[in-house]
Amino acid sequence: MEPRNFQLQCPMPALDFDIITLGHGSGGVLSHRLLSKTVFELLANPELDTHHDGALLNIDGECAFSTDSFVVSPIFFPGGNIGDLAVNGTVNDVAMCGAIPQYISLSLILEEGLKMTDLWEILCSIKTACDKAGVKVVTGDTKVVERGKGDQIFINTSGIGKMHPKANIDISRIHPGDQIIVSSNIGSHGTTIMAVREGHQFETQIKSDTRNLNDMSVALLDKFGDGIKFFRDATRGGVATVLNEIAIESKLEIEIDQAKLPVEPQVNALCEILGLDPLFVANEGLFTMIVQPGIAEDCIQLLNGMEGGEHAALIGAVRDTQSSKVVLKSGIGGRRVVSMLVGEQLPRIC
Amino acid sequence: MEPRNFQLQCPMPALDFDIITLGHGSGGVLSHRLLSKTVFELLANPELDTHHDGALLNIDGECAFSTDSFVVSPIFFPGGNIGDLAVNGTVNDVAMCGAIPQYISLSLILEEGLKMTDLWEILCSIKTACDKAGVKVVTGDTKVVERGKGDQIFINTSGIGKMHPKANIDISRIHPGDQIIVSSNIGSHGTTIMAVREGHQFETQIKSDTRNLNDMSVALLDKFGDGIKFFRDATRGGVATVLNEIAIESKLEIEIDQAKLPVEPQVNALCEILGLDPLFVANEGLFTMIVQPGIAEDCIQLLNGMEGGEHAALIGAVRDTQSSKVVLKSGIGGRRVVSMLVGEQLPRIC
Repeated sequence: MEPRNFQLQCPMPALDFDIITLGHGSGGVLSHRLLSKTVFELLANPELDTHHDGALLNIDGECAFSTDSFVVSPIFFPGGNIGDLAVNGTVNDVAMCGAIPQYISLSLILEEGLKMTDLWEILCSIKTACDKAGVKVVTGDTKVVERGKGDQIFINTSGIGKMHPKANIDISRIHPGDQIIVSSNIGSHGTTIMAVREGHQFETQIKSDTRNLNDMSVALLDKFGDGIKFFRDATRGGVATVLNEIAIESKLEIEIDQAKLPVEPQVNALCEILGLDPLFVANEGLFTMIVQPGIAEDCIQLLNGMEGGEHAALIGAVRDTQSSKVVLKSGIGGRRVVSMLVGEQLPRIC
Repeated sequence: MEPRNFQLQCPMPALDFDIITLGHGSGGVLSHRLLSKTVFELLANPELDTHHDGALLNIDGECAFSTDSFVVSPIFFPGGNIGDLAVNGTVNDVAMCGAIPQYISLSLILEEGLKMTDLWEILCSIKTACDKAGVKVVTGDTKVVERGKGDQIFINTSGIGKMHPKANIDISRIHPGDQIIVSSNIGSHGTTIMAVREGHQFETQIKSDTRNLNDMSVALLDKFGDGIKFFRDATRGGVATVLNEIAIESKLEIEIDQAKLPVEPQVNALCEILGLDPLFVANEGLFTMIVQPGIAEDCIQLLNGMEGGEHAALIGAVRDTQSSKVVLKSGIGGRRVVSMLVGEQLPRIC
C-alpha cells in the first residue's frame, strides 16, 4: 500500500482528550470545546462563523442541491479518506447538474472511541478538498453514538451550487448520434478499496481517484455550452449502471466499444484477481458525459489538458434503436447486453 | 406507553423483500427497486421526480441552509419516530434563522436487517411531517451498512428556506431589557425518550413534543417583524444551554424566573425520578425567543392561540450586567448560576 502520504496542513490543536466520548455529541460544553478547537478553527469562514442553527446565503436564480452520506470502509485508503471523499462526492453531484458548487454542509456521526488523531486527519482532508473545489463548509452537525452502534465515522455532506449560465443538462435532450465520453480511467476507486480489504494493498500502486470534477465540468460548459447534454459521475454501480440509467430514462440504446474503455493495466489485473468487472466498479473522480455529434474530439482534447482528465476517452454513441439497453461491442466483434449492477458488488464503497 | 397511534397514510407497497439487505445500498437494481416503490412514490414532487444527482431549485435572494443527522434511540417513541423528528429538526433550524423552510434533502443510513415495515412507517411519518411543515423532499441518498455497524437507521436532513422579508434575527441586536419567551412546556422530548429507555413508559402519558415550529415563527415575524431579535430551538442541552449560548455570545446576563418556567407536572415528576433537570432536557418542538421590550405579552397571546404554543410563557429578561451568565431566580428568592450542560445527560436524544 502506498503510504498514506498525509501532510497535516496545520498541527493538531492541544486537546484534553484523545478519543471521542458520548459527551462530545451532547450539544453542551464538550461539544462546544470539540468544535471550537477543530471544525470552527480549521474551516472558518464568515457564514460558518455565525454559529447559528443554519447559514445565511445569498443565492440568485436557479441552483442545484444535493446530498450524500458516506460510510466507506476502511475510512483511510490509498489516495484519500472518508473526509475528502465526502467533500468531492457532493461537490461532484452538484457539478453534474451543470452547477458551480459553492456551499456545503458537514454532518458527522462519530462512534464513541474514535481516535482524535484520526478525526483531525479527516478534518484536514476536508479542508484541503474544499479549498481545491472552491467550496465552503457553512453549516454542520455532530452526533456521537455508543461503541458498537456505528463504525468510527459516517459523514453526510449536502451541497448547493449556482447553475452555470450556459448549462442545459437534460436527459430528454439526448438523441441518436450523440457521443459518450468518460473523463478518466475506470474502476480505480472500487478496486482500491477492495484491494485493501482483501489484503492485496502491498502488491499494487493503485489508488482511489477521489477528486473534484467541477473544474472540468465548468471548463466544458464554458466552452461548449448546451453542446453538453448530460453529465453523471459514475460512483456506486460504476459506468455500466450510469449508462443503464441513461438508456432506461432516454428509452434509447447505448453502444460502447470495449476496446475504447480506458482502464489502468494494474486495475484490470487486480479486477481479474478479485473477480470484478471494471465497468461495474465505483469511481469517485470520473464522469460520463453525453455530447452532441461533432464536438467529442474537442471535449476530449480539453479534458486531456486538465488534471484528472488526462485519460478521457470517447467510448461509444447513442443509437436510434429504442431498446433502453446498453450494448458492449467486444474486441472480436461480438455484442452483449450490459445490465445494471444486481446485488451488491462492494458494500460500503463510498 | 401510549400506543404508537400510527395511521398508515397509504398501504405499504408489495415488495419481494421483508428486510433491508446490503444490496439495497449498492446503487444498482435493488437500490432502484427499493426507492422507486417507496421514497419516490410516497414523496413524489416535480423536483424529486427528475432522479438526477441533485435537485434544481429556484431561489431568489437570501436563504437559510441547515443540516442535522438524527441517531435517536429508540427509533419509535411516544409522540413520534426518527422520521418526523428528522424533518421537524431541520425545518426548525431553518425557521430559527428567520426563514421560511421550503426544501429538504433526505439521506438514509440503514443497517442490514432493518425491517421493511419499520422503514415504511418512518417514511410515512416523513411524508406527514413534510406536508404539515409545507416542505418538499427534493433530493436524497441511501446507504446500507452491515449488521452491527449501525443501529437500525440514521437519517440526515438538510434544509433550505427563503428568508422572511421582515426577519432581522441577529444576536448582536440583543440589548438589556429585552424579554425572553419559551414557546411551550419544557423538557418533554428528552424525558419521554429517557422514560422509554428506563422502562417507565407505562406509568405516564407524556410524549415527545416533536413538531414543526415554522408556523409559529412565521406568524410572529409577519406580525412583529424586527421586534423579534432572536430565535433558537432548545434541542440537545435544553433551554439552559441555549440561554448560555446567547449569554456568552451577547456578553450579557440573562435572568430567568424558576416560577415562570412552564413544565408539565408529569414531566416534572418523572424528571425527579430520573434525576434530570428539565432546564437541561432536550425539546423538539420548543423555541426560545428574545423580543424587544413591550411586545412580549402580544407575542405570547399570538402563540397561545396557535397549535404548539398553548403554553408559551415569558420566563425572564436580559440584564445589563456583562457577566455572560444565566441566572435563575428561585421561588424563595435565591439566585443561582445555571451553566451549560456538561458531559452527556441523555445520549442519542435526537
